[in-house]
Amino acid sequence: MQKPVLDFWFDFASVYSFLASMRIAPLADDAGVTVRWRPFLLGPIFAAQGMTDSPFNLFPVKGKHMIRDVQRSAEEIGVGFRWPDAFPQSAVLASRVALIGLKDSWGEDFCRAVFHTEYAENRVISEQTVIADILTKLKVPVDATFAGTQAEDIKAELRENTAEAQTRGFFGAPTFTTASGEMFWGNDRLEQALRWAKK
Amino acid sequence: MQKPVLDFWFDFASVYSFLASMRIAPLADDAGVTVRWRPFLLGPIFAAQGMTDSPFNLFPVKGKHMIRDVQRSAEEIGVGFRWPDAFPQSAVLASRVALIGLKDSWGEDFCRAVFHTEYAENRVISEQTVIADILTKLKVPVDATFAGTQAEDIKAELRENTAEAQTRGFFGAPTFTTASGEMFWGNDRLEQALRWAKK
Repeated sequence: MQKPVLDFWFDFASVYSFLASMRIAPLADDAGVTVRWRPFLLGPIFAAQGMTDSPFNLFPVKGKHMIRDVQRSAEEIGVGFRWPDAFPQSAVLASRVALIGLKDSWGEDFCRAVFHTEYAENRVISEQTVIADILTKLKVPVDATFAGTQAEDIKAELRENTAEAQTRGFFGAPTFTTASGEMFWGNDRLEQALRWAKK
Repeated sequence: MQKPVLDFWFDFASVYSFLASMRIAPLADDAGVTVRWRPFLLGPIFAAQGMTDSPFNLFPVKGKHMIRDVQRSAEEIGVGFRWPDAFPQSAVLASRVALIGLKDSWGEDFCRAVFHTEYAENRVISEQTVIADILTKLKVPVDATFAGTQAEDIKAELRENTAEAQTRGFFGAPTFTTASGEMFWGNDRLEQALRWAKK
């Protein structure tokens, strides 16, 4: 029997996507659910809703609390966390590389490594050298992969993911969607989304 | 030994406060934590952060999803839910009555009944007759209680709760605070807040 599928929509700029990326694989295994990792860009979606920056920058009282909230959750799940000096960071390069990797075997490891680099090591993921270091550690050819990010189909796939996210009424990340069309927003809805994927 | 205490800050206008109010008593019992129910008003807090309406009205894409999200959560915990025709509703009268009841034995039952009236029965809790119905069902004297809502100390207590919430950096409801000063935002942080209350 085919396993149920849950789509995991994330933006590398999103700190709650970081938390979800660190939790989702074992939880989905336990639940018997296949996860499809789907990078997209929040920027155009926020812009369409009248926001020209991260909501955490636009609403600083909320933003300040968010850092403490993520600290506590990261501690509970046992992953390192350090608020990066640069926030939010452009996820375009990392997302295109991720799309290449997700068609191969190294995509999910790459995604987790990018999130860790950004949110535990205070490095800037829009820099090619930072992404190159991650690829090298994963034994993925750097030059061929960067060349691949300029391919029209990869560029189009990221645009299409973002357009689909907007059409579906997304307003943040992570977002989870089931085959039946149910949508769940936030790292704290991951368990509920997995339950619904099996309905 | 004294049980640890968790403050449960809520606004009757807040639908996620409704969900938390329906869940908190048994969870706190299991955790061995005493809960202090603390009504406050989000309106002045949102206004100070540049919002003149509920964020769910200001960001309609998010607001639309929120209704579905609450439906699913209400279903999972087995409480009725119907999105009210009027949102948000003024919580001043209900909050003052709650403050009277919370000094007596009927406060928590009153709070749960107000939330249920608003979010399951589509009635408007700013109306005196609606609050009177709830008090009558709880066998609480209606006229004396309404007179009590005009007492200066009750009015002041609601203002002070709201001022304290603002000083503490609240930006939504429900919010939970521990004796050590940790702050947690959202119905989905209730379990985590109870764990921290015991640290």
